[in-house]
Amino acid sequence: MSIQDEIDTLRSTSNPTLRFTVPALEERLYKIHPVLDHGFIRVIDYMGGDPSIVQAARVSYGRGTKAVSNDRALIRYLVRHRHTSPLEMCEIKVHMKLPIFVARQLIRHRTANVNEVSGRYSIIEDEFYIPSPDQVCVQSSDNKQGRGLEVPPEKAEEVRQILIQHSVRSHEIYQELLNDDGEGNPVDPTEPMLARELSRIGLGVNFYTQWYWKVDLHNLFHFLGLRKDPHAQFEIRVYADVLGDIARDWAPLAWEAFEDYRFHAASFSRMELAGVAASLVEAGVGVEKLRAALKAAGCTGREISECVSKLGL
Amino acid sequence: MSIQDEIDTLRSTSNPTLRFTVPALEERLYKIHPVLDHGFIRVIDYMGGDPSIVQAARVSYGRGTKAVSNDRALIRYLVRHRHTSPLEMCEIKVHMKLPIFVARQLIRHRTANVNEVSGRYSIIEDEFYIPSPDQVCVQSSDNKQGRGLEVPPEKAEEVRQILIQHSVRSHEIYQELLNDDGEGNPVDPTEPMLARELSRIGLGVNFYTQWYWKVDLHNLFHFLGLRKDPHAQFEIRVYADVLGDIARDWAPLAWEAFEDYRFHAASFSRMELAGVAASLVEAGVGVEKLRAALKAAGCTGREISECVSKLGL
Amino acid sequence: MSIQDEIDTLRSTSNPTLRFTVPALEERLYKIHPVLDHGFIRVIDYMGGDPSIVQAARVSYGRGTKAVSNDRALIRYLVRHRHTSPLEMCEIKVHMKLPIFVARQLIRHRTANVNEVSGRYSIIEDEFYIPSPDQVCVQSSDNKQGRGLEVPPEKAEEVRQILIQHSVRSHEIYQELLNDDGEGNPVDPTEPMLARELSRIGLGVNFYTQWYWKVDLHNLFHFLGLRKDPHAQFEIRVYADVLGDIARDWAPLAWEAFEDYRFHAASFSRMELAGVAASLVEAGVGVEKLRAALKAAGCTGREISECVSKLGL
Amino acid sequence: MSIQDEIDTLRSTSNPTLRFTVPALEERLYKIHPVLDHGFIRVIDYMGGDPSIVQAARVSYGRGTKAVSNDRALIRYLVRHRHTSPLEMCEIKVHMKLPIFVARQLIRHRTANVNEVSGRYSIIEDEFYIPSPDQVCVQSSDNKQGRGLEVPPEKAEEVRQILIQHSVRSHEIYQELLNDDGEGNPVDPTEPMLARELSRIGLGVNFYTQWYWKVDLHNLFHFLGLRKDPHAQFEIRVYADVLGDIARDWAPLAWEAFEDYRFHAASFSRMELAGVAASLVEAGVGVEKLRAALKAAGCTGREISECVSKLGL
Repeated sequence: MSIQDEIDTLRSTSNPTLRFTVPALEERLYKIHPVLDHGFIRVIDYMGGDPSIVQAARVSYGRGTKAVSNDRALIRYLVRHRHTSPLEMCEIKVHMKLPIFVARQLIRHRTANVNEVSGRYSIIEDEFYIPSPDQVCVQSSDNKQGRGLEVPPEKAEEVRQILIQHSVRSHEIYQELLNDDGEGNPVDPTEPMLARELSRIGLGVNFYTQWYWKVDLHNLFHFLGLRKDPHAQFEIRVYADVLGDIARDWAPLAWEAFEDYRFHAASFSRMELAGVAASLVEAGVGVEKLRAALKAAGCTGREISECVSKLGL
Repeated sequence: MSIQDEIDTLRSTSNPTLRFTVPALEERLYKIHPVLDHGFIRVIDYMGGDPSIVQAARVSYGRGTKAVSNDRALIRYLVRHRHTSPLEMCEIKVHMKLPIFVARQLIRHRTANVNEVSGRYSIIEDEFYIPSPDQVCVQSSDNKQGRGLEVPPEKAEEVRQILIQHSVRSHEIYQELLNDDGEGNPVDPTEPMLARELSRIGLGVNFYTQWYWKVDLHNLFHFLGLRKDPHAQFEIRVYADVLGDIARDWAPLAWEAFEDYRFHAASFSRMELAGVAASLVEAGVGVEKLRAALKAAGCTGREISECVSKLGL
Repeated sequence: MSIQDEIDTLRSTSNPTLRFTVPALEERLYKIHPVLDHGFIRVIDYMGGDPSIVQAARVSYGRGTKAVSNDRALIRYLVRHRHTSPLEMCEIKVHMKLPIFVARQLIRHRTANVNEVSGRYSIIEDEFYIPSPDQVCVQSSDNKQGRGLEVPPEKAEEVRQILIQHSVRSHEIYQELLNDDGEGNPVDPTEPMLARELSRIGLGVNFYTQWYWKVDLHNLFHFLGLRKDPHAQFEIRVYADVLGDIARDWAPLAWEAFEDYRFHAASFSRMELAGVAASLVEAGVGVEKLRAALKAAGCTGREISECVSKLGL
Repeated sequence: MSIQDEIDTLRSTSNPTLRFTVPALEERLYKIHPVLDHGFIRVIDYMGGDPSIVQAARVSYGRGTKAVSNDRALIRYLVRHRHTSPLEMCEIKVHMKLPIFVARQLIRHRTANVNEVSGRYSIIEDEFYIPSPDQVCVQSSDNKQGRGLEVPPEKAEEVRQILIQHSVRSHEIYQELLNDDGEGNPVDPTEPMLARELSRIGLGVNFYTQWYWKVDLHNLFHFLGLRKDPHAQFEIRVYADVLGDIARDWAPLAWEAFEDYRFHAASFSRMELAGVAASLVEAGVGVEKLRAALKAAGCTGREISECVSKLGL
């Protein structure tokens, strides 16, 4: 059965459930969301959503929902004050295909559950990541672990060709060592069939692997906060971006709170607070003016008071 | 809305989903499964089931199911060889009401997600655990942390009355200190309304608390292995028993494997292996006789070979 | 051997080690740091310190130290940018005595290792927490889970006496049910000796328990960030304060960074950033003025640039 | 400073400490324990040892040691009954150099703390793993993820040369793309210096990486139980073997218990228990004979009774 047939089969079978469902996420289930040149993310399963956060925070008997406006206020309160345990009550599971060097970064997030294909057991496909020309960039001069400007197109293409040839050769060597016709029989009966766990050691970290990855919403947000960041490597950031789109559909209220209080928020150190406060005072910005500006920017009354207090004004 | 009305409302709303569903668990959803005198377990949500284990172990595109017999064999292989990560792909969430001293044992299982009602925020209800007469037992003489024989009925009743009176008094003191009519106004306007976080410190560890508790199937099995054990305290064992019944409905193949390879299995030390093997050899039980007995007991061919090997025969 | 004798014995035996040592923490080892009326914290062991953070961040062969000034800069960089894994390379172990309701809050920090005395196995001592008169406070009116003003001294004393009498009675009942003379023999031979795991269920959550608690520096800082906060309950805050004093001695550079970038820092939401920026702009505070104020407040050049950028100026 | 100089410097500086020390582990500190062709393990720090396990299990004020014989019995009891939390009170930190494909297996053990060199930041050295001739083996026929017989010496050498040439070429490409003379200047000023995070994507999973790895004794034993096993891949097993030697020096009583009750123990399923018991009964091995054989094999009285009970005899 082809992959598309598998997906069609899964998408054609609907069952009734008493569980909370998220129609926008149902729409995404099982489908392939492409990432990079051969990678993807597929949503396989989910548990809960915005109302589950409220339900857990209230330890309530019913769904926890009073009114959507109340739910929104409570979720924003929880995210703002880092009361993160109710967000742990939502869980999502995805099937990912990703280069090994991206998988190595992602696996550092220890709070997820992972099942990866094993190169000891399975034969690794001839699929490897090659950066698109606009991603062939020089070392950043100001960021020791970042990417700077693009190189000229012909140079980029040259780099790509070097990587392609080397990767193709990697997989040829792999196949020579395996000497396996895919049915468990030798391609060349006069040669040994080397162990899979050994044959694969020359493959590059740009070869694709696959896994099932399961994580709760709190830890997904933590991951996204780090990996959607401009300082994250481009190749993991594109996976984070797709996961972010999925999270927005899954729990829109929590996502909005995440954006406002985490992703587009910033931490100010003791010294920064002092410096900003001094600037305001020196410029004669009184508390009233500051409160008005915060209100205009969309802060609630409680948030305005807390902000003034954080600045020591 | 009464608790039963909340449950009825939740159970009356069915939605279509493309996710895997478990009809036997749908049947249990939201309902109260009573435990002890005032406690309960309610299944709130679940993700996955037996086919999800297979799907993750194979990192497959579809459901992972080839035939039920294949699924069963794979799941049993995984549980037998402690390849537990595919079991982590199933997740369940329950609402529990339980005495504080039971909650204190349960919380030690750090791999679960928990949202508990807070005595700093909420008013604690007048509900406490009193052992039934047959559970009023003497200290075990051979097990330093266990329960021995029952005491005579009249003594049991005397103990229960002492605990009831003391617990009732605990909650009276709590209410006197709170001085809260439940609407946030003082019962006695001439007295202060003490802080909730302070008023509750005299309540006994037999008072009931509530929480949402979410755990994956691997960690649930680990928990059940420890807490369904006869050495576990009775009051947590009854919660484990209900969770076990739920797990059986949820993932019957995994449950069967858990019973065969974990719960009704036993570990033999290096010395025990040597002693048992010596007994067999001395009695003239050859490998053939042992293999026949293992086959008669239900071991598969591979299991028989592994068992012979474990005994060094 | 008395507790003090045990401590004196431990403190009298010094051994040579090639490991990194922290003289200021050696000075604290094993001693009792009192907390609340009967509680304490004792430092039992530690691993690493400031240089271990640098060593791990550099994955270096030697201690990692180039110059103290470099170490300080690197540690501050790590804490500022939440590169927290090097801080996990430092570990500390303490022996704590604390009321059960405090232990219940502390145990929620799942990343620590814990060994607690068991009420199923050991006999619980007649020690319980009673708030000092200045801690007998009314429910906060603006914080639903907080403490407000003190009550008058005579009322405070009345509350304390109610709690004392009830706690004393709790332990009397406990002893009656146990009927154990401390040597495993019945006090009253005509009465049964009830199981320990049962006899203790009427004891209040203000009774003291003890445990060994082990945590790494990153997770300790996370704990302190939450529990040294004014919103934390007083009775856990005092434990956090002592642990903070210990951390300051243990890793002074990391502690300083924690204070500057975490504890005395504040997060500004998307809306707060917009409001503060608008205030500055409206008042005519240009980038130059802001940079000067940040410099005067102690920000480094890089921090100044990042702060300007965070405000979108 | 050369690596050996760094090590000599660290080993030449001894300080007094009141902490528990393990002379046999002090002897190992900082030294290089070679593994594979270019890898190593270096013990950097440790916390606790056998007496710390006893101390935590007893939640005692002093070291916890009564007599060595008592300590041994308690530790064996804890390991036998999987009371593993006291073992979490011992912590060890090592510096490892290991091939990426080994690191990928090791990182799956999520309970350790890790700091790895980053290929985004650092330049990767020209060191890669090539199996020794006796490790060039065919795919196992009975174990789908294992290694079978060795190939003939001339074939093994041919395989090694293919892998060597390809790996050398990998690093040449890496250096061409980097175009970095090691001082941050281009080797060829007419060519761009590509980003490090990009240049490394063609390097094979046999290239060496380095990290600091910290783990507690319970989780180290869990790791060793899986990775010292004959089914583990040879290249991770040799790391596990060295870590096992270190653990034996560090906590000899716990190690002995681990060997007896975990590593050289075996789990018997419900069916295996039934089959073995039936064999014994059928052969007329009564309880007395079994008890005698178990005693001769070194079981204690309590262990003998438990073993008879496990077999249902």
